[in-house]
Amino acid sequence: LNNRIPIALDVMGGDKAPEMVLKGADIALVRFPDLSFQLFGLEERIKPLLEKLPRLKQASVVHHAEDVITGEAKPSSVIRMKRTSMRLAIDAVEAGDAACCVSAGNTGALMAIAKIVLKMLPGIDRPAIATFLPTAVGESVILDLGANVECDAENLVQFALMGDSFARAVLGLSKPTIGLLNIGSEELKGNEAVREAGQRLRDGVPGLTFHGFVEGTDIAAGTVDVIVTDGFTGNIALKTIEGTVKLYTQFLRGAFKSSLLAKLGYLFAAPALQRMRERLDPRRYNGAMLLGLNGIVVKSHGSSDEIGFANAIGVAHDLCANGFLERIREELEALSTIAAESQAAAAQV
Amino acid sequence: LNNRIPIALDVMGGDKAPEMVLKGADIALVRFPDLSFQLFGLEERIKPLLEKLPRLKQASVVHHAEDVITGEAKPSSVIRMKRTSMRLAIDAVEAGDAACCVSAGNTGALMAIAKIVLKMLPGIDRPAIATFLPTAVGESVILDLGANVECDAENLVQFALMGDSFARAVLGLSKPTIGLLNIGSEELKGNEAVREAGQRLRDGVPGLTFHGFVEGTDIAAGTVDVIVTDGFTGNIALKTIEGTVKLYTQFLRGAFKSSLLAKLGYLFAAPALQRMRERLDPRRYNGAMLLGLNGIVVKSHGSSDEIGFANAIGVAHDLCANGFLERIREELEALSTIAAESQAAAAQV
Repeated sequence: LNNRIPIALDVMGGDKAPEMVLKGADIALVRFPDLSFQLFGLEERIKPLLEKLPRLKQASVVHHAEDVITGEAKPSSVIRMKRTSMRLAIDAVEAGDAACCVSAGNTGALMAIAKIVLKMLPGIDRPAIATFLPTAVGESVILDLGANVECDAENLVQFALMGDSFARAVLGLSKPTIGLLNIGSEELKGNEAVREAGQRLRDGVPGLTFHGFVEGTDIAAGTVDVIVTDGFTGNIALKTIEGTVKLYTQFLRGAFKSSLLAKLGYLFAAPALQRMRERLDPRRYNGAMLLGLNGIVVKSHGSSDEIGFANAIGVAHDLCANGFLERIREELEALSTIAAESQAAAAQV
Repeated sequence: LNNRIPIALDVMGGDKAPEMVLKGADIALVRFPDLSFQLFGLEERIKPLLEKLPRLKQASVVHHAEDVITGEAKPSSVIRMKRTSMRLAIDAVEAGDAACCVSAGNTGALMAIAKIVLKMLPGIDRPAIATFLPTAVGESVILDLGANVECDAENLVQFALMGDSFARAVLGLSKPTIGLLNIGSEELKGNEAVREAGQRLRDGVPGLTFHGFVEGTDIAAGTVDVIVTDGFTGNIALKTIEGTVKLYTQFLRGAFKSSLLAKLGYLFAAPALQRMRERLDPRRYNGAMLLGLNGIVVKSHGSSDEIGFANAIGVAHDLCANGFLERIREELEALSTIAAESQAAAAQV
């Protein structure tokens, strides 16, 4: 197991944990045989399940964690709990025993513990949550999805930088385009934070390709590779997409059931429709990254099944395999050097 | 024409004006024979078109307006232009010559002129833009869609009140439920304005049925009849829905074209799919209301065709026929009486 990428799993996090987590890890192993797992959770629950998953069993080590964080637990209380499955999984990343951590547990708790244990990257004030989404032309990254309810221009510029690195690592893009989500494309549109961030990005941030303001319709259109917004708007936009896809699917199902001819039509078109459903399947886009931390933490949807959890592990794998953390550290250092130089130059003038 | 509802039309507003506006009015007349129209715009463009629309011609009066507001015009400059088709149409509402006005022109200009000419309703600080949307269980109202980029708690409470009246008038509901858009349903979630507005609505606003916080997924689910949010979030949510529906439709079209069997399936299911498309057709939901003004102004999408514009006229018709303005005035008066009484009671304590 020595040359594999070690991933720490919070086996107890998620509505269908621990079975879902272990089955998901087993599925991920087929796609990524270069992985090994550190399993954190209740030993007496994990061991019997592992007996049925021999492939996973031989690629993992079990670490007993006596406590479990519930979905309702407040971040302020969980940070004092040192023996939870989530905490120990993050501790393993901090200690260097794991390359990253994947959890389907309580998001607020995950964020709070990760901030305390892993600390923030130099130059980043606040973490952000990012994910990727299907678009008309491929896939795009969107952040922040709820870590920061209110954001100033500096936060948004930092999100642009983190989203850029994320798109390079997960989507494999060499020069991702960045868009700032707004209610119009004109420079005067939007609130103060968005206008100021837009100005700073237009003035130029080294390494970033800024497209300009984008609107809600641009998310699905794939106008840009990275959509930057505050956590309030991003969370609502993401859940609005989720709801709209669900509604459309419901209407479609209703249409195919509405007549005998339509039912017949469904039979003929079923394989093609199945491929389309797979493309829009939210499980395919499971795996949100907690960005800005000095370590890789991937959050799976709490209600995910094993297929979705395997995809979250896939995102974690790509981030580790592509040296995401080293890359973002380098970018931030380059940026702070430039900032220092321009400050020094300004002082000489 | 004396007993009909007179509607003022900005014939020159919209990408496909004036043909689109006149054809739309002609279609609306079939559905609503109780309408008559005051047509504002370039007489030399309108008259020849009217000759081809005899039904509309006999139900309308043409008023020449020499100026036209472009899509790029700034609100600050248009308010000085007194002879535009948009201005004269709104003037007709103010003078009582028309019961309401419908325009597919520049939204910012329409809002600015309407505020100056019609003034705000007593007790309302800022206007809001509202529309209705398809949901899993019927239709819901959503506001604000972009009139107010930043909102405080008082604005949001006023939007709840206006949305309530709008849902009663347009959807015919007797007791609409109100939801405040947020990133979670717990009381502590969200920014300060949303939390405070949530508290005030929970404490109780007479006549309103407050459901609580709702999330992005609840829009399409139809969890509540009225979704209240600030103009930044509302605009982005609405356009995100628009983009997602378009993407899904594109994927669906691709799926039906992907194989011979799928094409055959489409042939069988086509009538059922057509009915579904109609249900999701954005033209069906065309007609956003500028709420909070002392007069009824309905905004059609600028890129609308005649079918969509006819629906916007339909919204205007329903608002007039259901006495929307009188009703919202009464509700606001009742509310200010209650507020005055509770202030007086508080002063006595």
